[in-house]
Amino acid sequence: MSNPLVVDIHTHVYPPAYIEMLRARKKVPYIHDPSDGGPPRLIILASDDDSSIPVDERGRPVDSSYSDIKVKLDFMQKHGIDCSVISLANPWLDFVGEEQASEWAQKINDDLDSTCTQVNTTVSQTQSARLPRLFAFGTLPLGAPGPEAIADELHRIKTLRHMRGVIMGTTGRGHGLDDPGLDPVWKALEDTQLMLFLHPHYGLPDEAFGGPEVVRRYGHVLPLALGFPLETTIAVTRMYLSGVFDRFPKLQILLAHSGGTLPFLAGRIESCIAHERTFKVNGGTVQGPQRGIWDVLKTNIYLDAVVYGTAGMKAAVEASGGTTDRLLFGTDHPFFPPLSDEDEQWTSVVTNYKAINKTFEKDGDAVAGVLGGNAIRILNLK
Amino acid sequence: MSNPLVVDIHTHVYPPAYIEMLRARKKVPYIHDPSDGGPPRLIILASDDDSSIPVDERGRPVDSSYSDIKVKLDFMQKHGIDCSVISLANPWLDFVGEEQASEWAQKINDDLDSTCTQVNTTVSQTQSARLPRLFAFGTLPLGAPGPEAIADELHRIKTLRHMRGVIMGTTGRGHGLDDPGLDPVWKALEDTQLMLFLHPHYGLPDEAFGGPEVVRRYGHVLPLALGFPLETTIAVTRMYLSGVFDRFPKLQILLAHSGGTLPFLAGRIESCIAHERTFKVNGGTVQGPQRGIWDVLKTNIYLDAVVYGTAGMKAAVEASGGTTDRLLFGTDHPFFPPLSDEDEQWTSVVTNYKAINKTFEKDGDAVAGVLGGNAIRILNLK
Repeated sequence: MSNPLVVDIHTHVYPPAYIEMLRARKKVPYIHDPSDGGPPRLIILASDDDSSIPVDERGRPVDSSYSDIKVKLDFMQKHGIDCSVISLANPWLDFVGEEQASEWAQKINDDLDSTCTQVNTTVSQTQSARLPRLFAFGTLPLGAPGPEAIADELHRIKTLRHMRGVIMGTTGRGHGLDDPGLDPVWKALEDTQLMLFLHPHYGLPDEAFGGPEVVRRYGHVLPLALGFPLETTIAVTRMYLSGVFDRFPKLQILLAHSGGTLPFLAGRIESCIAHERTFKVNGGTVQGPQRGIWDVLKTNIYLDAVVYGTAGMKAAVEASGGTTDRLLFGTDHPFFPPLSDEDEQWTSVVTNYKAINKTFEKDGDAVAGVLGGNAIRILNLK
Repeated sequence: MSNPLVVDIHTHVYPPAYIEMLRARKKVPYIHDPSDGGPPRLIILASDDDSSIPVDERGRPVDSSYSDIKVKLDFMQKHGIDCSVISLANPWLDFVGEEQASEWAQKINDDLDSTCTQVNTTVSQTQSARLPRLFAFGTLPLGAPGPEAIADELHRIKTLRHMRGVIMGTTGRGHGLDDPGLDPVWKALEDTQLMLFLHPHYGLPDEAFGGPEVVRRYGHVLPLALGFPLETTIAVTRMYLSGVFDRFPKLQILLAHSGGTLPFLAGRIESCIAHERTFKVNGGTVQGPQRGIWDVLKTNIYLDAVVYGTAGMKAAVEASGGTTDRLLFGTDHPFFPPLSDEDEQWTSVVTNYKAINKTFEKDGDAVAGVLGGNAIRILNLK
């Protein structure tokens, strides 16, 4: 078998205009240029905006990998990635108020689509590419005055050549994803059949880990390793419990980091629902979800393969109904770069490649599907 | 093959003396006898102690299944369970202050051991039991003035005939399980080679789910289905990150609910550590864990099989190093009872039986191991 096509569906950018917007801000999220001339610091997590840390050292250094598409293309080449579906990185436009939300969403979406056009045109003229190099997930004006503006942008995104879906965080319009006010957004997603890429940003409150001192003790490990996946799990569970998948059975949702922890906890969620006295089915007064969680996982949910090991991968496959058809390779670039400056492949990426190969070693079709075939088919990447 | 022996290692009791202690209290945890003569209400979760709920309706009804060992034995018979390793249910003695902690721990532990003796003696005289009916995990006086008193009780527990370990929550002496003040406890656990059964109780702060109104909207589903497993995961991750398993490499820990979410997230934890600038190995100043998380999972950690589905089960096996030898059947009795009064087998138990049989259907030895053989071997149940 020839080398399978590799598609990265979890890879982020901050377009230059977005970077400049962050640079003009003084509260989270913002970019600060240190007085010693060192690399700019990106401060997007509330926990990094800590007055006990000198402002020149807060957050993480941000380099050209965040906004220069050439760096992304180099990264793709180095790691054997044929095609990337780029998306704005967190926190997207969550913090942009109603006056400017729609304008910024249009600007970012047009910018991303135009970047795809430029790169794909150049590549097709100079190289024998097996696939267009770039597609994109758009971003939504969640701060717009009403959900209709969000739905409008979804319909506009659908008309852009390289858009295949939208990325969204877990807060929706500020009240979580079980907010009935989001129904027009779910409706527009169904109507356009755009993929919703659900991604964490806010993690869990420090108190969940034992307070800010405990969190700081271990750097970013607790918020990133545990907080992020739980945030995703909570968000999609609230959607599910509130009946979103009953009302909008055609939603297509891609969950970051293999669903956070949803594949592992789906059974426990199902059991807790079956034993919940509040729910009507058990004699209570509250309408619980009508569809089973395993049905939703098999029908509405796709999982990326950014799970760093065979244990998570096996749960992801099993939760998808025992099929590898809903699992999609990703890198999380430009996050988790090597900590040294060595010119090697990124450990974070190699770990996920290895996990895929080891999990499906006896099944070349499965490997090819997870690495790229599934994404090409599901997102129509041509 | 004859029917495999079935051992339930996750099954709780509140001895009558403990029930009476709760009944004398007016704040969480407590038991309230409704004025209408209905069944007593057990209020152990802070979220259930809600002044907007009439006191007669708070928490859950508590019946004889919580403290009458005959009810436990009937439950065992109905579900084909040969042997149970009983443990005090949450919140154990976490709330008992230093004056009384050791006294209560001794009382509970002697009581549990004596219950085992009585039942096993009666059974051996009247039935052809293939195994003693009962063993127990003890409880610790975590509120004692110093860790030495906790270590002393561990050594005393070791001398009791039916004790095979201790159950513990996630707060330790109030500062979490990465508290260096717990080192004498870890040392005593190593010296006695008693199993530590780590179990959640406190869940996550309501804010993690979007606030108390969101939590109430779905009954107990969010705290129990997601909060409990994350609490366990956070606790054991803090132990790991602080080097407990480096300093005490012979610890044996059984994690409730198949590790919370640890099997699924172990890869992400490993990756976040490899990319954490704080840790010395990456040029930082903080000593990170020396042993790999997969090594700890294969060497120090056992998982119960209370995970309600094949997806979690497969991750649990894979995280255990691809072996079923570290996975142990449990029921969580008397929690998650049927909501109707039908005289059927409990759904919560049947779900876990089915998950085990489906996951390992082609491997009778694996099924027999998970159902009972592993527990008999690991806990020396004879």
